[in-house]
Amino acid sequence: MDDDMEGGNLGPYQERARVFPNMRAKPYTPLIFRLLMRINIRVLFVLMLLGFGAIFYIGASTSPIIVFVFSVCIISFLLAIYLTKWVLAKDEGPPEMVQISDAIRDGAEGFFRTQYGTISKMAVLLGLVILSIYLFRGKTPQQESSGLGRSTSAFITVAAFLLGALCSGIAGYVGMWVSVRANVRVSSAARRSAREALQIAVRAGGFSALVVVGMAVVGIAILYATFYVWLGVDSPGAMKVTDLPLLLVGYGFGASFVALFAQLGGGIYTKAADVGADLVGKVEQGIPEDDPRNPAVIADLVGDNVGDCAARGADLFESIAAEIISAMILGGTMAQRCKLEDPSGFILFPLVVHSFDLVISSVGIFSIRNTYDSGVLGDVEDPMLILQKGYSVTIVLAVLTFGLSTRWMLYTEQAPSAWLNFALCGLVGIITAYLFVWITQYYTDYKHEPVRMLALSSSTGHGTNIIAGVSLGLESTALPVLVISIAIVSAYWLGQTSGLVDESGSPTGGLFGTAVATMGMLSTAAYVLTMDMFGPIADNAGGIVEMSQQPESVREITDVLDAVGNTTKATTKGFAIGSAALASFLLFSAYMDEVATFAHVPFNQVDIAIPEVFVGGLLGSMLIFLFSAWACSAVGRTAQEVVKEVRRQFIERPGIMDYKEKPDYGRCVSIVASASLREMIKPGALAIISPIVVGLVFRVLGYYTGHPLLGAKVVASMLMFATVSGILMALFLNTAGGAWDNAKKYIETGALGGKGSDSHKAAVTGDTVGDPFKDTAGPSLHVLIKMLATITLVMAPIFL
Amino acid sequence: MDDDMEGGNLGPYQERARVFPNMRAKPYTPLIFRLLMRINIRVLFVLMLLGFGAIFYIGASTSPIIVFVFSVCIISFLLAIYLTKWVLAKDEGPPEMVQISDAIRDGAEGFFRTQYGTISKMAVLLGLVILSIYLFRGKTPQQESSGLGRSTSAFITVAAFLLGALCSGIAGYVGMWVSVRANVRVSSAARRSAREALQIAVRAGGFSALVVVGMAVVGIAILYATFYVWLGVDSPGAMKVTDLPLLLVGYGFGASFVALFAQLGGGIYTKAADVGADLVGKVEQGIPEDDPRNPAVIADLVGDNVGDCAARGADLFESIAAEIISAMILGGTMAQRCKLEDPSGFILFPLVVHSFDLVISSVGIFSIRNTYDSGVLGDVEDPMLILQKGYSVTIVLAVLTFGLSTRWMLYTEQAPSAWLNFALCGLVGIITAYLFVWITQYYTDYKHEPVRMLALSSSTGHGTNIIAGVSLGLESTALPVLVISIAIVSAYWLGQTSGLVDESGSPTGGLFGTAVATMGMLSTAAYVLTMDMFGPIADNAGGIVEMSQQPESVREITDVLDAVGNTTKATTKGFAIGSAALASFLLFSAYMDEVATFAHVPFNQVDIAIPEVFVGGLLGSMLIFLFSAWACSAVGRTAQEVVKEVRRQFIERPGIMDYKEKPDYGRCVSIVASASLREMIKPGALAIISPIVVGLVFRVLGYYTGHPLLGAKVVASMLMFATVSGILMALFLNTAGGAWDNAKKYIETGALGGKGSDSHKAAVTGDTVGDPFKDTAGPSLHVLIKMLATITLVMAPIFL
Repeated sequence: MDDDMEGGNLGPYQERARVFPNMRAKPYTPLIFRLLMRINIRVLFVLMLLGFGAIFYIGASTSPIIVFVFSVCIISFLLAIYLTKWVLAKDEGPPEMVQISDAIRDGAEGFFRTQYGTISKMAVLLGLVILSIYLFRGKTPQQESSGLGRSTSAFITVAAFLLGALCSGIAGYVGMWVSVRANVRVSSAARRSAREALQIAVRAGGFSALVVVGMAVVGIAILYATFYVWLGVDSPGAMKVTDLPLLLVGYGFGASFVALFAQLGGGIYTKAADVGADLVGKVEQGIPEDDPRNPAVIADLVGDNVGDCAARGADLFESIAAEIISAMILGGTMAQRCKLEDPSGFILFPLVVHSFDLVISSVGIFSIRNTYDSGVLGDVEDPMLILQKGYSVTIVLAVLTFGLSTRWMLYTEQAPSAWLNFALCGLVGIITAYLFVWITQYYTDYKHEPVRMLALSSSTGHGTNIIAGVSLGLESTALPVLVISIAIVSAYWLGQTSGLVDESGSPTGGLFGTAVATMGMLSTAAYVLTMDMFGPIADNAGGIVEMSQQPESVREITDVLDAVGNTTKATTKGFAIGSAALASFLLFSAYMDEVATFAHVPFNQVDIAIPEVFVGGLLGSMLIFLFSAWACSAVGRTAQEVVKEVRRQFIERPGIMDYKEKPDYGRCVSIVASASLREMIKPGALAIISPIVVGLVFRVLGYYTGHPLLGAKVVASMLMFATVSGILMALFLNTAGGAWDNAKKYIETGALGGKGSDSHKAAVTGDTVGDPFKDTAGPSLHVLIKMLATITLVMAPIFL
Repeated sequence: MDDDMEGGNLGPYQERARVFPNMRAKPYTPLIFRLLMRINIRVLFVLMLLGFGAIFYIGASTSPIIVFVFSVCIISFLLAIYLTKWVLAKDEGPPEMVQISDAIRDGAEGFFRTQYGTISKMAVLLGLVILSIYLFRGKTPQQESSGLGRSTSAFITVAAFLLGALCSGIAGYVGMWVSVRANVRVSSAARRSAREALQIAVRAGGFSALVVVGMAVVGIAILYATFYVWLGVDSPGAMKVTDLPLLLVGYGFGASFVALFAQLGGGIYTKAADVGADLVGKVEQGIPEDDPRNPAVIADLVGDNVGDCAARGADLFESIAAEIISAMILGGTMAQRCKLEDPSGFILFPLVVHSFDLVISSVGIFSIRNTYDSGVLGDVEDPMLILQKGYSVTIVLAVLTFGLSTRWMLYTEQAPSAWLNFALCGLVGIITAYLFVWITQYYTDYKHEPVRMLALSSSTGHGTNIIAGVSLGLESTALPVLVISIAIVSAYWLGQTSGLVDESGSPTGGLFGTAVATMGMLSTAAYVLTMDMFGPIADNAGGIVEMSQQPESVREITDVLDAVGNTTKATTKGFAIGSAALASFLLFSAYMDEVATFAHVPFNQVDIAIPEVFVGGLLGSMLIFLFSAWACSAVGRTAQEVVKEVRRQFIERPGIMDYKEKPDYGRCVSIVASASLREMIKPGALAIISPIVVGLVFRVLGYYTGHPLLGAKVVASMLMFATVSGILMALFLNTAGGAWDNAKKYIETGALGGKGSDSHKAAVTGDTVGDPFKDTAGPSLHVLIKMLATITLVMAPIFL
């Protein structure tokens, strides 16, 4: 495309692409990614379909439920292909947009390759560690009875781990792949109609949501079916089906492991670039956000893709995977205790719930159409209302399908009304999700009191703004904790009174009740992920529109979409932490089951009145504080490097401010990329190593002081305290960050002096502080909580 | 004193006093305080001595140990009288100093009266609530066997509660009383010699330290002896001496209750005034700290006295009281389990430790002399070194006397080497104290890396400064937690291996070991409190010197003392939170003992695998976050009122900046006073009401779901999680605040652009944010942790 003809003021953009080769500072990318990148996308899908055909056979020999799950997933993948074709068929707009978009894509894909190269090396290393641990541990009673050899068990766990890691990586890649292609199409569509732009962003988000959720479900289903057939489960002398889910924990750990580093690296990247760009651009030079004169602006836009899209894809993937696996473990345990005739319903229930999730979320996504269903109002309709309408459709369907699945899967002769109790548990989960979204909106939307008070406190300076924001964030933990407390207690009670009893006649469905509530909460996950992915795509589209200097009317459209995206991003975080909080209790129980299995003794108490156990709790909470510290300081340090680079460019190239000189975007991109790769290691390693070290130290201590299971108990308490502190810390960080962001936006609407006033400067400081809170440390904590649970599940043998 | 003769530029100061009558906005003060204020100080002491004579008789009929404790305390009180006479004999300096000092004293005493009037009303109300609870609860087995009636027990608890509250109030009053008198004498002495100024500040601090610690010890000793004689303990058919300490819990709760509100009210007062004064004075107008032109400056100086002196006095008082009582309970329980012949050594051990504390701390205080013992160096000696030298003397003596006390009190025929193990536990505590002080200094002193990095991050703006400070604070929790973890585990292990065994032969001294370690940590409490009190006195002296416009040389001396005071204040907080962390485990165990006593069943497990118990933990951690939020936002809101008032005065009286018009100091004082009284209620009520509500709700829930003791278990878990989160949050808040303060001071030494640079402005923002962290929320959390423990101890009967 020969744009040189088009005139002077577009010149800088046409040359920009040449700056970017620098960005790929680390040229090495692992073979698997190079191969994946090169394969034509259609060939890839054909290969996938062939693979599905092969495993379909295995599924059919396992259970008709598995066939159902496979079928739904394949339909969703086909739908996803339709969505991506639909999005890619849209035009990419004028060449200046395309070039900016290309620069963003190059930056994002370059960083993704380097980052995932590092992560995959670490994953392989960790896989070897797990392998050696499993080869040297003792046999479990299940293994003995089923003849499952030590090495078989080791390879199964490691294979599951690597598959989980790979799928998590693909989930992240898919999220980023579509967003770097959809952004420019949304920008282009914004020149025509707000509704079309909205629809493209939603469908692009929908694509990755369907792929992410579908892959989590299908991955587990494949593993389950393969192990079932291979190990000859339920045939005489072989393994029992109720013990099968324990073999899947490696998958969850692999997913969490990749998600943690993806979230850390991406989160540091996006916020360091954002903070660095804002501090010099907005605060010192007074130029607007995403202004093409700011040398860090491309890095900022790249960050949206690697931080928000790729990382959130991996995050939700591991949320669903971890939650499915722990619910399957608990379902199996309960079915065994109750001596149910056919336990497969209880074990496979989570897979069915998420299959329905794919169906109903697709309906929700397709309910957002280009035709104006509201008639006269047309274009001026609030995009938030459109998204919420889609969400309402999805929620209503979720309630119906959840009832259906409980009746289908959880009906048992032993307790004929149990399925009704569990359906109510699901309803508790759905209501909890709704309340979490509502509370998050109350504390982060400037329509409500808290953010307005925060904005007001900006008028007395930077200091009072920060104090007020910190207080707001700390206070915002109260209501969600109350909601989650009520949800846990009531779901447990509903499960307990379901009529399912163990051999001795005591009720035993309580834990499974909380598991069902968690599934209820996540039963609309694909739609929520769609809304979440919508945010960064709209944000990027706004950036492209701003940088390619489109007319005011186009900017207005992308600004509205961006603002809606901010709200949906904030509410998704509320949703994610709510489900993590609810799931944590399952994962904890699954860990205790696992330990009991390995240790050949019952393990159903964690008594914090024992000093060592109390110390474990202290260390667990401390882990959360230290992890948050390192995540935030990584952003601070990287942002300082960006600030220095941007300041240097403004000084050395004074022509930048008058559009006469071109900033060196590539340098900022490569600074942020290499710094965030370096900085993600420390907090990530802390999260993985500390539970192992604590478990081993107290195992040794327990050995010498004559306390059996001391290591396992201390790790349990560490896990529990870390979960509680992690939930609170994440709520604090997410809400404070979101509120600061919107307090700034509120002032920018003209309140309290508007843009450029002292209040606005104070609000920008708050926004800067909130950035690493809400997009680096906060979301990483969601992953950390679940990774702690899965790492303790996988590492359980070494604590004994 | 007719100063009008002395010349023009002193004029405004002479008139200032007339502004202050406004300050006493709430004229009502309760009778008891009016009486106390009117009694001549010598008459008061004579009355006290007479009282001691009377109770000496009771002590003699109880145990020779009690007589020893009484004697030491009386000697300390005499020493304290000597110290106060010595301080008061110093000159008050020129009239302009006296008038400023008078204004501060009026403001402080006015606020103190109103505040304690409110607190005493609440205490009486709560006393009535406790009375009714105890009148309607069931009898304990001890009561049944000893014939202790229900109403006797109720009145004993309420009387102990009210006595604890009264003593805590007196401790606070004494702290403030001496500091408002010493400040001007230190200022005056600074005109002559740095050493003399230092000595006055130390001795004034020593006075209140001796009174506070002495009163805690003597109060408990009197209660113990009185109950012993009155109830005829250890005579056949009466109460056993090992159960006696449980009757004292009311005293601890009374002390905590008053300390909580004292710390909250005082903390909000001091920091709202400070933040408000700094935001307008330093940031907007660019005038120095404590400049007489700032209308909020007197309020700021008053705040130092009511916040730091009065509140810290009450805080340390309740620390020591709570720790003594819980150690006595544990000692009694252990003695009973081991069937020791003479349990009084184990029960009275904490009183003896703190009696020795009074002796050795006095030696430390008196080791700081006016004569230059280092000869040539003389005046230029670093005051920090002098204070640390005194501390070293105290520490060495503490190790010696601790060994002595363990041999004297804890030697028993049953386990001849147990005393040695317990002496080592004490050593663990002393080392822990030392490490805590060292870690706090590392993170908050600008000689070390962390604060320097924080200062560096100020050079890239307000935002990066806040991010770096928050990260630093979060990170600083790691080492103290590791230290405390090692201390708990090793002290428990030392206690467990002491050779003390129960009837069944299993070792039983573990918990008492951690109790002894806590006592070891607090064994130099009086000296530490002296160093702490030194801080605000020096700060105030600096303010008076600045306001009375003394020559540069005098300011230099008070500046050095002020800087040292900041360091000692920060280290004392580390010490306080360390001892709270160590004590929390005892208080928790004491609670479990108490519940077991009331419930007639063993209660030695808190199993967090039970959903309701887990939810209790979630709620406990949330309580900490919410309490911190409310404490910080109270400061933010009040500071905003101050900012508006100061801005108004600068606009309406433009002559203020040229010294032509006099600011209205009184208005700021009364605004801050009434706002902080209003704001202290919400967080305080939260802390008191929430454990009661949680206990009752889960008691009812447990009743309907058939879980006995559910309320008590949930409260135990709430207490435990709140303690862990509280320790971490307090460490975070204290360290971040201290580091921000010193990063600002580091820049003010000329680094990174020095005063007035952009780095300095960013550092001032950090300092402002840190103020409520380190002086309101942080110290209130210390008290909260212990108050939660004592409130659950006292309220235990209603959870069953």
